[in-house]
Amino acid sequence: MPQPTQRSVYDSVSPLEFRYYGVDPDLIALLSPYVTERARLAYELKVEVAAARVLARRGICPPEAAREIEVAAARVTAEEVAAEEARIHHNIRAMVNCLQAKVSDAARPFVHFTLTSFDVIDTAIAARMKDCTQRAVVPKLLDLEATLITLARRERDRPQIGRTHGQHAVPITFGFALAEYVSRLGERIEAIQGAAANLRGKISGAVGAYNASSLLIDDPAAFEEEVLAELGLRPAWHSTQIVAPEHVTDYMHTLTSCFSVLAALADDMRHLQRTEISEVGEAFEASQVGSSTMPHKRNPWNFENVKSLYKAFMPRMVSVYLDQLSEHQRDLTNSATNRFLPETIVGLMNASERLRRIMSRLVVDGEQMRANLELTAGMCLAEPLYILLAAQGHPDAHEAVRRLTLEAERTGRRLWDVAAESDIGPYLDRMTPAQRAVLQDPALYQGIAALRVDAICDHYAERLGLAGR
Amino acid sequence: MPQPTQRSVYDSVSPLEFRYYGVDPDLIALLSPYVTERARLAYELKVEVAAARVLARRGICPPEAAREIEVAAARVTAEEVAAEEARIHHNIRAMVNCLQAKVSDAARPFVHFTLTSFDVIDTAIAARMKDCTQRAVVPKLLDLEATLITLARRERDRPQIGRTHGQHAVPITFGFALAEYVSRLGERIEAIQGAAANLRGKISGAVGAYNASSLLIDDPAAFEEEVLAELGLRPAWHSTQIVAPEHVTDYMHTLTSCFSVLAALADDMRHLQRTEISEVGEAFEASQVGSSTMPHKRNPWNFENVKSLYKAFMPRMVSVYLDQLSEHQRDLTNSATNRFLPETIVGLMNASERLRRIMSRLVVDGEQMRANLELTAGMCLAEPLYILLAAQGHPDAHEAVRRLTLEAERTGRRLWDVAAESDIGPYLDRMTPAQRAVLQDPALYQGIAALRVDAICDHYAERLGLAGR
Amino acid sequence: MPQPTQRSVYDSVSPLEFRYYGVDPDLIALLSPYVTERARLAYELKVEVAAARVLARRGICPPEAAREIEVAAARVTAEEVAAEEARIHHNIRAMVNCLQAKVSDAARPFVHFTLTSFDVIDTAIAARMKDCTQRAVVPKLLDLEATLITLARRERDRPQIGRTHGQHAVPITFGFALAEYVSRLGERIEAIQGAAANLRGKISGAVGAYNASSLLIDDPAAFEEEVLAELGLRPAWHSTQIVAPEHVTDYMHTLTSCFSVLAALADDMRHLQRTEISEVGEAFEASQVGSSTMPHKRNPWNFENVKSLYKAFMPRMVSVYLDQLSEHQRDLTNSATNRFLPETIVGLMNASERLRRIMSRLVVDGEQMRANLELTAGMCLAEPLYILLAAQGHPDAHEAVRRLTLEAERTGRRLWDVAAESDIGPYLDRMTPAQRAVLQDPALYQGIAALRVDAICDHYAERLGLAGR
Amino acid sequence: MPQPTQRSVYDSVSPLEFRYYGVDPDLIALLSPYVTERARLAYELKVEVAAARVLARRGICPPEAAREIEVAAARVTAEEVAAEEARIHHNIRAMVNCLQAKVSDAARPFVHFTLTSFDVIDTAIAARMKDCTQRAVVPKLLDLEATLITLARRERDRPQIGRTHGQHAVPITFGFALAEYVSRLGERIEAIQGAAANLRGKISGAVGAYNASSLLIDDPAAFEEEVLAELGLRPAWHSTQIVAPEHVTDYMHTLTSCFSVLAALADDMRHLQRTEISEVGEAFEASQVGSSTMPHKRNPWNFENVKSLYKAFMPRMVSVYLDQLSEHQRDLTNSATNRFLPETIVGLMNASERLRRIMSRLVVDGEQMRANLELTAGMCLAEPLYILLAAQGHPDAHEAVRRLTLEAERTGRRLWDVAAESDIGPYLDRMTPAQRAVLQDPALYQGIAALRVDAICDHYAERLGLAGR
Repeated sequence: MPQPTQRSVYDSVSPLEFRYYGVDPDLIALLSPYVTERARLAYELKVEVAAARVLARRGICPPEAAREIEVAAARVTAEEVAAEEARIHHNIRAMVNCLQAKVSDAARPFVHFTLTSFDVIDTAIAARMKDCTQRAVVPKLLDLEATLITLARRERDRPQIGRTHGQHAVPITFGFALAEYVSRLGERIEAIQGAAANLRGKISGAVGAYNASSLLIDDPAAFEEEVLAELGLRPAWHSTQIVAPEHVTDYMHTLTSCFSVLAALADDMRHLQRTEISEVGEAFEASQVGSSTMPHKRNPWNFENVKSLYKAFMPRMVSVYLDQLSEHQRDLTNSATNRFLPETIVGLMNASERLRRIMSRLVVDGEQMRANLELTAGMCLAEPLYILLAAQGHPDAHEAVRRLTLEAERTGRRLWDVAAESDIGPYLDRMTPAQRAVLQDPALYQGIAALRVDAICDHYAERLGLAGR
Repeated sequence: MPQPTQRSVYDSVSPLEFRYYGVDPDLIALLSPYVTERARLAYELKVEVAAARVLARRGICPPEAAREIEVAAARVTAEEVAAEEARIHHNIRAMVNCLQAKVSDAARPFVHFTLTSFDVIDTAIAARMKDCTQRAVVPKLLDLEATLITLARRERDRPQIGRTHGQHAVPITFGFALAEYVSRLGERIEAIQGAAANLRGKISGAVGAYNASSLLIDDPAAFEEEVLAELGLRPAWHSTQIVAPEHVTDYMHTLTSCFSVLAALADDMRHLQRTEISEVGEAFEASQVGSSTMPHKRNPWNFENVKSLYKAFMPRMVSVYLDQLSEHQRDLTNSATNRFLPETIVGLMNASERLRRIMSRLVVDGEQMRANLELTAGMCLAEPLYILLAAQGHPDAHEAVRRLTLEAERTGRRLWDVAAESDIGPYLDRMTPAQRAVLQDPALYQGIAALRVDAICDHYAERLGLAGR
Repeated sequence: MPQPTQRSVYDSVSPLEFRYYGVDPDLIALLSPYVTERARLAYELKVEVAAARVLARRGICPPEAAREIEVAAARVTAEEVAAEEARIHHNIRAMVNCLQAKVSDAARPFVHFTLTSFDVIDTAIAARMKDCTQRAVVPKLLDLEATLITLARRERDRPQIGRTHGQHAVPITFGFALAEYVSRLGERIEAIQGAAANLRGKISGAVGAYNASSLLIDDPAAFEEEVLAELGLRPAWHSTQIVAPEHVTDYMHTLTSCFSVLAALADDMRHLQRTEISEVGEAFEASQVGSSTMPHKRNPWNFENVKSLYKAFMPRMVSVYLDQLSEHQRDLTNSATNRFLPETIVGLMNASERLRRIMSRLVVDGEQMRANLELTAGMCLAEPLYILLAAQGHPDAHEAVRRLTLEAERTGRRLWDVAAESDIGPYLDRMTPAQRAVLQDPALYQGIAALRVDAICDHYAERLGLAGR
Repeated sequence: MPQPTQRSVYDSVSPLEFRYYGVDPDLIALLSPYVTERARLAYELKVEVAAARVLARRGICPPEAAREIEVAAARVTAEEVAAEEARIHHNIRAMVNCLQAKVSDAARPFVHFTLTSFDVIDTAIAARMKDCTQRAVVPKLLDLEATLITLARRERDRPQIGRTHGQHAVPITFGFALAEYVSRLGERIEAIQGAAANLRGKISGAVGAYNASSLLIDDPAAFEEEVLAELGLRPAWHSTQIVAPEHVTDYMHTLTSCFSVLAALADDMRHLQRTEISEVGEAFEASQVGSSTMPHKRNPWNFENVKSLYKAFMPRMVSVYLDQLSEHQRDLTNSATNRFLPETIVGLMNASERLRRIMSRLVVDGEQMRANLELTAGMCLAEPLYILLAAQGHPDAHEAVRRLTLEAERTGRRLWDVAAESDIGPYLDRMTPAQRAVLQDPALYQGIAALRVDAICDHYAERLGLAGR
């Protein structure tokens, strides 16, 4: 008896369906051609069609047969394949049966001709991940990258205290802090592109030795290349029943390490949003509720959500590594893990789009940034004081400054004032006016932060083709 | 604009929806009251109702208000809450708004009275996981346990070679091999029961200090206990905005470690099904297709699938550990991870039911087991030979037997024959007839394997209430 | 040629050797009887001695033989066993050879009599982990627990703002924040004790069916119980060549989940130490250097280190889960993983002792806590305002307060002042003086935080036998 | 009081010290310049020397000062730095102090001039990992690759049954099975080389904005480039206090995914060594003991060990991913994780060398391979039968062959014989003699397995410069 397959998303178990994907029309429009079960079938049918087309081109099957197969493939539905699979318990055979049922007797033998199931399955995975990356993942990540570039440039010169260990260190600009993510995300986008372009297919038969195809085709490796070329893919040097797993492993690694970068950005933003720091904030809608009982709160829940999605998806990389092990010419212990792979893409896309949305209207409180910069009364200038003292030849600059900072801390006075009155006064006098100015205003001690913003944004805008945006 | 929320499962990303749960009417019937988004809402409403009931009992709100809330709760739908959440971006407030809209002005203030969102969310999670465990998870695992007990008892005496390192070691019975899993699964079922019974709720307000409730209720900790008791739960000693994570962590650990046990059983079975070993097999349906191009194959695809589901879900334990860290009185970086938890239950149930189905009709080839036992021509009797030689006072039994086995291996003769002709002959003569018999028939050298089957099966059948089955 | 085995710790690869354990005399004194390679050997010899003792008690071997074995065991060194293993490539056989070489011909056959290697290895692991837990791990964790109890009690009444999402929520006391960890750590200590007490040994032979021992001993399961009892252990219901892995898995889970609790405490403390928050600090030694170029910094490096150790050790739980899978009567793919287990104990002990040291002299800045509490000008009192309004029958208290907070935020005035002048004034007039006081001073709105500190500290001090400290 | 730092390896906790590295003179010789604590210090000193050299070249410090620093660096010992760190609790400052103590007053200010600790630490890590990869990791992996190529070529034509799902599928050659690992390992070696070459250093100061260096150097980014070039490194586009983590993450990913490939090879070999399969074996030494009580056993313990090391190290990738998150301009929660990184290199090298040793003297049993190939009486020829039937125009070849295999299975007759007598006889008659021959001898149905061995071995031998070996 056929099961009812139309259901409310609220009857789903997976939060992707009822929360992070299945109720988001934009994500559905963007990703459904690649990540759903229906998409899996569509790509598997593409492989069958590609094989038939090459058979025809080589004169092994009549051109009409290939055309019939192509037409039939467009009419095979996920529903009928599922029904057939319920009967015979083999998903690819089910698809083949459905396809064969739609073609003439003459065309029938050329459906799935010399192929093994995993020629179709693994090639289809490579093709849809590659297409998905080029058409959806990279464009979406580039949207975020472009947003970050715009923001970094806007905030190029705004002084902010740099923080290490959560402690005030020395100043940067907020644009420089954002340029970190322009650089890291930009570099990950290129890594993802590279790994996707390196995904491989196979048409090498049941154990990878072209046993079946070599019966009927003179140069089965060339045949494989032609079929894969139809799908924009190349073969690997060696395959068994399956493609060597490293291509997918590398690809999933790039997604996972990119997810880490998004999570790091989200962490930075939510900490900058702490009540005591308050340098940035998620923009709030008028009708939005921050907390059910603390209505004044402005929780960084989108940033938190990005971090949480990361925590949900990153550990799945362990499954991917485990799938590199498959006994002999393959066991099937990747049957389920394999099916979960597209979820990571979906999780990453949700996080990326969420970040883009929030970052594009990030509220930046420049006054508070300036106030925080002044919070330690110039203590963050201990470093240039030490450097310039050493440059002036002070024999133990580090220790001298350490004592001055303790004194400044004890008395609550500005470091410069304490220093000026101390025995290092003569060294200060020998400094240039510009050096003395830096020692009195943290905002001046920002190295080449602004120049780096330009260099980084220019570099990635150019390299990633974002210059026009 | 409201999104369409009715969709085909084949438009899902999650394989749970289109493959491992959402197309399985039995699993849906068993688990949907606990694991879906709809179930989440239902349990959150239960918490609201429980709170109202206790307020009424204590005279804080009128009994009619509590009754109104209970009636209204039954009418709140996932669809309307989702619509309200889309408007205000706060899921619990959305639920509260929907509930309040269905009661009179008099009852309205007592909806969610003194509660914070996570009083509801965390308590609801604990309650539904606990109910799910008692009503679905444990019964389903007990079905598998009962199947294993039946099978272990049936196979109690069937000789099988014991294997260590994939090498023939010394004999056992197949029932003894199965009793391993009776014991390990039985023990995990008890661990799961214990961890589920230890799940905790909280009604302690926004930071766990009962700030809100103590304004209006004299003994807010007692109030908390009463509300939780309505749901069969207890409070933890300390909570913040959330329940201390360890209770859920322990629970997920028991599920995960149980999943490992199922995977270990699946691994054992699929290796016993190797062509060269062929001691067991998955029963095949007449219409089933084993391979799309190798029709003779009988692939252990269900066992492989169990292993693969394990590989998909085990690493998620890393997410659970990460969720033990939440800054101060909580950050929200478990917002997504938390929503994925029920998936592990579903994965485990699919694997468990799959194993039960396959194990209940496992094909055991006793002749092949016996043939395998004889494969090394008695070499597996080196151990008793060594033991009995040592017992007879041979000064270097281990070395002597090592040499005899090399000789037997070299010549292809049975170990007993080689030994009988060697200089250890006199030792053999001094042995009892029973001892000499053991040294000539591997099937006799099985220790107390059969007795252990009885002891283990009796113990767990009794402890887990399976005696009647 | 024997390798030189004396080396400088700085020639080590493992940071445990040169940094977290091997240069810490206290940790070495505490843990070396259990965690080193030498300790492994010592416990394996204990198992041999226990077996010999029971053989003698049962009259199977002469009492003198057992005594000889006991005396010899005390003289076997790690160095000689390593040399023998280099020769024969089998570590347990090497130990047995060394032991046999030190006893008379009469005693020799009773060394390792009927045992298989993993009877010794797995039983020794269980015994040393159990001893280590009772004598080192739990006492050390109790030292930290006692420190936390003392600190929580001292800070029982000090007002602190509660933080959720990094945002100011409603007040607690700092003692209440610490009591969270009294409770969570206390509960983990009990979990660790329970799991250690449940570790099991085995004396059931090569495949767990007592094949060898049943040749010579009437009731081999009783013999197993007796030998294990010598070491304070019990058998499992079923073993193969190895003990069922779940006992060790559960134990490692308790250590790992305890590590998470320490990391969560460390995270909380390092965030409270942020420059802008500055509520607590690690005490600094006079000669200590905070940063090589920023001498004023007071980095929370010990707390960071605890978090980092956690990140290093938590993922190893994946290895532990993987070791639950062992083919048939065991494969040996846990040979290495197994040897790394004690490292997690060492990492946890380093982190625990580090935390104890830092927490015992934690610098708490009460003034800064009070200043932070006032930072939002009473905004954290929106919750009680909403609650009390609702209690007074306001029909839409949540929305009313949300608007007041926006007004207060916009104008920078205190929430109370804004509220008093708004249309909710009449509701405020109807409140009790105590209620009105709470709405004007955050420090008064702390629920029953202080009472919970008492309850939690009393409970765990009592339960864990820390009352006298 | 200084701690004794000379200890026996048997007093270590880490199995690397007493088992997998510290007792292996060859591994020590190969890796100690890169992986020990002493090596860490040596590379950090190299960074200090490089910086001084560039300062001198630019005329910022006198050439004599740079020379003094270089000479002094060679004399700094791990022991004295440890002692100084024990005093001041800062490891880089301790190193700097020791270095400064060895130079003149004139040179002293130019030690660590404008550098921050992590300029030194991160640059040193990149440099030693890069050197280690080029000089030790890759050469060692190439030894294994060369061994596999030799073996694959030797076994190029030896027929073996291909196995999928542990079931006999269709034939390959054993050389083809090995060529899988030539290809996968070869590709990983290139990935490791690429990732190592992409490791980056930094000389950009406390928060990455060149704050300090820009005080005294006109073009601090060019200065950074020059210093790094001294060490064979390049800078990243952006750094904070630390180098962007992705470079190390990618590198560790290549090591981890390479480890998976070694584990997959080990798994394949140990399964081929199963008693029932017995196609290969680890060579045994005369004095070696296989089992303490089952002296006849030949356990694949080296292959098991490789798998186990993999299980120990692979999950550590989770720590690496977690270290991609570091708050703001860095927190220090990678302080410990970071120190464990070289352990993975050591683990991989142990596994690789172990595999090389075992594979180079792998015992291959060609007779047994042939016997296994015949085990199913030609059933593995169902596939070509189906293909050739379909090619002959049979309308339902798949179903026809499925029935024939059931018949062959039922009767125990060879598939060819059953087929020849069935109604498909006429199709057989129309086949070519070569096709009919294939259908009667599995060894002939091996596709282009042998040709692929040539292609793969030639390709990687050439690409990796192994052609001469």
